[in-house]
This record gives sequence, C-alpha cells and structure tokens, in this order.
Amino acid sequence: MDFFFNPKSVAVIGASTKPGKIGYEIVKSLLNSEFEGNVYPVHKRGEEIAGKTSYTSISELPSDVDLAVIALPSKLIPGMIGECAKVGVKGIVIVSGGFKELNEEGAAYEKEAVESARKNGIRIIGPNCVGVFNGKSRFDTFFQPNYAMSRPKEGNISILAQSATFGLTLLEWLSEEGLGVSKFVSWGNRSDVDEVDTLDYLQKDTETKVIGIHMEGVPRAREFMSVAEKVSPKKPIVALKSGSTERGAKAAVSHTGSMAGSMEVFKGAMKQCGVVVAEDLEQMFDLTKILSLQPEIEGRRIAMVTNGAGPCVAAVDALQDTKLELARLAEDTIDELRYRLPPFCIIDNPLDITGSADAEMYELSLKELAKDENVDILMPFYVFQDGPIAATVDDMVESLKELATGEKPIVSVAAGGAFTKKQQLRFQEIGIPVIPTADRMISALARIDWYRNWMINH
Amino acid sequence: MDFFFNPKSVAVIGASTKPGKIGYEIVKSLLNSEFEGNVYPVHKRGEEIAGKTSYTSISELPSDVDLAVIALPSKLIPGMIGECAKVGVKGIVIVSGGFKELNEEGAAYEKEAVESARKNGIRIIGPNCVGVFNGKSRFDTFFQPNYAMSRPKEGNISILAQSATFGLTLLEWLSEEGLGVSKFVSWGNRSDVDEVDTLDYLQKDTETKVIGIHMEGVPRAREFMSVAEKVSPKKPIVALKSGSTERGAKAAVSHTGSMAGSMEVFKGAMKQCGVVVAEDLEQMFDLTKILSLQPEIEGRRIAMVTNGAGPCVAAVDALQDTKLELARLAEDTIDELRYRLPPFCIIDNPLDITGSADAEMYELSLKELAKDENVDILMPFYVFQDGPIAATVDDMVESLKELATGEKPIVSVAAGGAFTKKQQLRFQEIGIPVIPTADRMISALARIDWYRNWMINH
Repeated sequence: MDFFFNPKSVAVIGASTKPGKIGYEIVKSLLNSEFEGNVYPVHKRGEEIAGKTSYTSISELPSDVDLAVIALPSKLIPGMIGECAKVGVKGIVIVSGGFKELNEEGAAYEKEAVESARKNGIRIIGPNCVGVFNGKSRFDTFFQPNYAMSRPKEGNISILAQSATFGLTLLEWLSEEGLGVSKFVSWGNRSDVDEVDTLDYLQKDTETKVIGIHMEGVPRAREFMSVAEKVSPKKPIVALKSGSTERGAKAAVSHTGSMAGSMEVFKGAMKQCGVVVAEDLEQMFDLTKILSLQPEIEGRRIAMVTNGAGPCVAAVDALQDTKLELARLAEDTIDELRYRLPPFCIIDNPLDITGSADAEMYELSLKELAKDENVDILMPFYVFQDGPIAATVDDMVESLKELATGEKPIVSVAAGGAFTKKQQLRFQEIGIPVIPTADRMISALARIDWYRNWMINH
Repeated sequence: MDFFFNPKSVAVIGASTKPGKIGYEIVKSLLNSEFEGNVYPVHKRGEEIAGKTSYTSISELPSDVDLAVIALPSKLIPGMIGECAKVGVKGIVIVSGGFKELNEEGAAYEKEAVESARKNGIRIIGPNCVGVFNGKSRFDTFFQPNYAMSRPKEGNISILAQSATFGLTLLEWLSEEGLGVSKFVSWGNRSDVDEVDTLDYLQKDTETKVIGIHMEGVPRAREFMSVAEKVSPKKPIVALKSGSTERGAKAAVSHTGSMAGSMEVFKGAMKQCGVVVAEDLEQMFDLTKILSLQPEIEGRRIAMVTNGAGPCVAAVDALQDTKLELARLAEDTIDELRYRLPPFCIIDNPLDITGSADAEMYELSLKELAKDENVDILMPFYVFQDGPIAATVDDMVESLKELATGEKPIVSVAAGGAFTKKQQLRFQEIGIPVIPTADRMISALARIDWYRNWMINH
C-alpha cells in the first residue's frame, strides 16, 4: 500500500479549470504542498489547470505515474481502471460519490470498478472519500483547499476514517494544537482497501505510534479483530463507531453504504482485541493526543494540584464511574508540602494552592508529588487567566521540562481563550497534554487505564 | 444589589505595587477597562499603584465610594467591614481565601465578617471568589489581567458560578465566539449574597435573557426553587452541579466550604422548577449559546442537511436517547428537492447534498425544508473545509440572513480550524448557533426540548 502514501507521481483524472470545483482543488492543493513528486492533471480538452499543462487522456500519461486520483461522474469510472493499469498505475483514489451510497445503479458501477481493479492488479481507496494524507511527504489527495483547512505537521498519530468529515476535523484539531500525523486514510464506501488492510500496513509503519479509527460498520469483523489483536500490544488503537442505532444504521447506508451493527456487540469485540473505544469525536481526539504525547501509564493513583479548585471537584466526581483513584499522599509528602507552601494552601489531594499560586509554588508542589510512591499520575490543573500564574508562566514551562521527561506521566487540565491556548501549545510541545475539562480528562484516562490492564492481562 | 454591578466608585483594599499580585491586578484591570467610575486603591504605605495614587486608610476614602474589593489575609478582614460602612460602602467583594474552605479559624473569621456586615447594612460577595463583571458598564473585580483573559462583549447571557474557574472559562468561551454577557457573579464561599439573591436580581434585569448557573451545593434549596420557578417561564435557567459524589463533596468542602447533595435529588428538584440541567461545562456553554441566539423552539421534528454525512449518522444515533425526531419530509418537499438538486444528491432526511455542495445548493435545500410543515427545526451541518462551499461561503452567509430571522429555528453543526471558526463567528453574528459535534448538538437540543415541554405543562 505504500504507493498510496508515497507515490512517485500522481495523475488527477477529472481535473477542472474552475476554482471551487473538486477537480480543481485537488490539483491546486497538491501543487501548493511540499510533495516532491510530479502532478499530472488529466482534462478532456487538455486545458491548463492551476498553471499546469494537462493531459487529454490517461494513455498519454508519463510512465512514472503510480497513483491516480479520480473525480468524475460514477458511470465513467469503471471503464478507466484498465486504462490506468496500462500506464503503470498501482493505486487509485476515487473521490467521487454516486456509487453504492446512492442507488442500485451506483452499486453496479462500484462492483464493476472493483472487479476491473482486481483483474488489473490495482488497489482502490474509496469511492466517496477524500483519500490520503502523509504527514512526512506532505502528499494529500484532499479537495479541501489550504486556506480552508490546515494540514497537521509530521508526527506519530495515524487516523483512519470512514467519515471524511470526522477524519478532516481530527486532522485540523490536531494541527491547531501542534500535534503531528503520520498517515491518514478516509475510505468512504471502502470498496477495496479497508480497515483490515490499513491496520496491517500501519502495524509495520515505524512512524506510527497511535492509531485512531472511525467506522460505521466492520464487515470483515473477524479479520479486523485478528489484526487489531496483533497491533494493540505495540500501538494503541482508539476506535469510534457510529451508525449503531436502527435509524443511524439507515443513515449510514446512504452515507457510505455500510451495514452497521449494534454498539454492544462492537464494544464487546473491541474489548477482546485491546481496542480502546471512544465515546465521541472529542474523546477520540483527547485519547490520540494523550497517547501520542505521554509515556505508558503504570498505575491509577492520581495526584491533583490546582490554582482553582472547581474543576478538581468535577474531576473527583467523575472518578466515581472509573477504576482510577485519588492517591493517598504519603505523610512525608503532606509534611513537606505543609512546611514549604504558604499557610493559605489546602494541603490535601486535590492540593489547592489557590489563585495566589505562581510558577514556584507549582514547581515545588509537583516535584514533591512526583517523589511520592503513592502517586502514579500527576495531574496539574491550571487557571492560566489568574494574575500570579499568568505573570510567571514562562518559568512554569521551564520547570515542567524536567518533569515532562520524568518517570511519572503528567497530564493537565486548562480551558480558556487565546492566552490559555498559547500556553497549551507550549505545554504540548514539551510533551504535556492539556485537556479542556475535568470530565473529558478523567473519561479519557479511564480508557487508557483499561488499555493498560488489557496489556497486563494479555 | 445594583451597586455590585454599577458602583459609582470602587475602593480596592489591599492593593499591591507588584505586578502579578492579586492586589495589583485588580486595580490594573479596573483602570484598563472602560468602567467610568473612580478607582481608589488603598495601600498601607500609600504607594502609587499602576500609576494611581493610593489612600493609606479606609477612613480617608472619598464619599462617592459605594463598593469595596478586598484582597488581604483573612484575619484582617472582619475588622474592616465596619470601617467600610462608615465611609458609605454598601457592598463588599472579598476576593481573598483563607476562610471556611481552609479551617475552623477561617470559618470563624467568615462568620465574624458576615455578622459585622449584617449589623452595618452591607452585602458581601465571597469570600474566596473573583467577584463580578458587568458586560455593559465594563466593570469587573477580576484579578485576571486583560492579556491573560478576554472579557466578553455586552449581551443577554448572565453567568453565576460558585467555581470562579468554571465561570471565567465560560466568559472566555463566550467571548471567543462573539457571544455577549449581561451580568456575571462568582460567589465562592457564598457567605452572604447567594444564588437565591442573584437569581431574584436577574429576574428583573431587562438585559438578561438566559441564565447559566454553576453550584456545588444549594443550601437554601426551598428558596432557590421558589425563585427559579418564577424566573424559568420568563428566562431559561441552565444549571450545572458538581460535588455530587461522596469524594466530590469532600473536595467541594475544601473548595468553597459547600455541603453538596446527591445528583439525583438535585435533578429532581430542578425538574420541578423548570431549570435545565447541564451534564458538564461544555454543555452549559452550548445551552446558554443556543438559548441566547435562537427563538423558542416549537416542536421536535428536525430536518438535517449536509455536505458530509458522517456527523449526521452520529446525530441520528444520538436521537435515540431523546424525544427529538427526524422529520418525515412531505412528498412535495421530496419531489421538489429531487427535481431541483443534482442527481448525485441523496434526497432523504438527513439530506446529503455531498462534498460538491455550494451555497446555492444549501440555500435551495434549506428554503424547501423551511416550507415543509412537518419540519420544526432546521439543522444544517457544514464541512466548511470542502472546496465548493469554502469558495462560496460569503453567499452562504448572505442567504442565511433571511432564514435566520424566519419562523423556524436554525441550529448548525461544524468543526475545524481557523477557517471554520471564522465562519462560525459570522453565523453566530446573524443568530445561528454553531455547535462542534453532532452529539453535543442533539444532547443540548434534547434539554431545550424538555424545557419547551415544561413551559407548556407549567
């Protein structure tokens, strides 16, 4: 499957001269990216597309083309597969819709295209999808222009998404928060290449550390579980499923032609093969983010420290539904904190160092908590808006660099506007994930704790 | 209570000369704001604070001072209440902690301060809080500097928060999304002014249309329910409760000294008096946003239209747990849509106009759906990243202006990066709320639907 992510050259069949049209935007964003291969637009009248001369037919394409992206009406596509094979194409991304998701006629075109691909030794991604993105080579097949959608930097998260919308949203959220992506695939109707193939490919991809996957159905469930069980011990897999209710399943059929199954059956199957199930898109984002940045978590006893206790109260509430625990701090830790912190601090877990807390008080507290053998996870909460911490936040980041690479995982909670988001980026740059709310943090961490236990018992 | 929001002049007792200190930041942000009243720092050595000459004692303060903000160690405060009364102060915001939330000694200071206030005819907000904000007069008592925390513009949402962190986060989220705020209060330990007083005040506040309220406990439960039942039919109240588990309640005691109660009892009580209960902080934000922007919802049959069906599948799944419904479109609507939209569109509810959809296709679809008598709520989903809609988004906004003021409520779903957020601001400016995920949208709307029914049966 490597030609999908690292093609030598790519042909765009159905290229358009009109900005805003899918066949134009694919060419334009390929030319705008740092992708180093050749880009060959194919246009029936051979017109110039985004400043690039186009070819009038597939047969004229140069011999270095190994990938084709097609954006044409569905009925024209089956006949083109063989033509692509003749000039050396190994993979085709069919962006267009109008196939299985639309009606029976479309389903017939889809079947015909796949049959032709199998006969000609070609692999297909799609149809009805946005295709692929490679964070390293900067290659993508998106019809989402750069001004409307930012691409994340290179990194260790791979995202597979049946829903292009979910996939692209995750890519942009990751991009906005400075997180990096290795590979991205959106299959849409998943007529050929599917989650089993892609998971198998990512198993050997040294650039991928965490895999996020959105599905509306798992047609090759047994094969999926078999691959997932091999991948999970090496790289955590986070899965999100939609289309699980009767009405949702009906909607999924006309989305990607998927037959969806019940959520309970899905969850049971995922549990067996070590796949972490996300409740919704935001949790899928939180989970991939935490797993990408933090070393493996080795226990469930959490120490919280904060300059504003409200979110800690919510976090402690949320613990009740999980196996996570508030650490019982050692007496030495309590004594040391009581001795070294100002008298207005509430020495307990959560440790409330109040709105007067500055970087020094946070550093002192976190270092003491890190030393405590009863503590497995450090969880600082920040109200970056407060004057004392806002004024000393540079020192805060400096002091955290050491702790961030220490033995105990650190995850943190903070929410706000532009200033807070800036600090979040700085924290994440040094490897400390920042989650906006206590509920989201505890819920994500409970799932990572489940994964840790699966690993132990596996 | 009006002197808390519209003081003639304000004294800051415990003003500090050091940037980053609470007593400095309060003076600084008052001077930086557009608040038109006088600001009098009180500092024991009478030093200049943020360029302003200070008074060495309370007794020297000019006679126009009606509000005092105090940031001093707790033990000093009880003795100051009487002094404040002598110079005409009517309200005091005690920002400092070190009271009931810390220990018994602190609880005694708190009791003493309140007794002195009652004797002297003074009202107290706090202690252990950030105080108040008035969106119109731009008066606030925050120790959060402007560079670290943006203040929302003037608007119709009022936020009451026991947790300052939750309150300030909401203010910043609202500010970032162009939403406006009328009044804000954070009570902290709530020694005197509480949710009952504030709700009663907001009942008559013509600038407030929606009230969001965070609580860790409801000590005057009966009085609260009585006021809430009067307010709810006029202005929706959204409540968030934390500290409901045993451990959470323990954490709440050392946060704001609150005794928290069980969540089930709380929910039952809120149901009786028409208060919409939010599940978490993000939902509190979504609910206040939708209620602030959209006219009352008058039915539960939703029509969805999208250029990327993934989130619609999730939305349809989410409907299952609610009383909301997918509208069964009238035959005329189906016929008209089939006739006027391109053949690749999936004419159903959700209506999938595909990634090729531009502003014209959205306009056509939404206008048809708005005419359908089987539809109560219009719910467009947008993938703003897609080339065709990105290129025509200006037309999209223009065409929505008319629908936004039409008879049927419009709420929409979209998520992404900078470009999407820009479109979100434009949509919200014309009154169409944009929620990032389908799950959040359906969950919030189900609660608004519950409120609609409470109103009918009340």
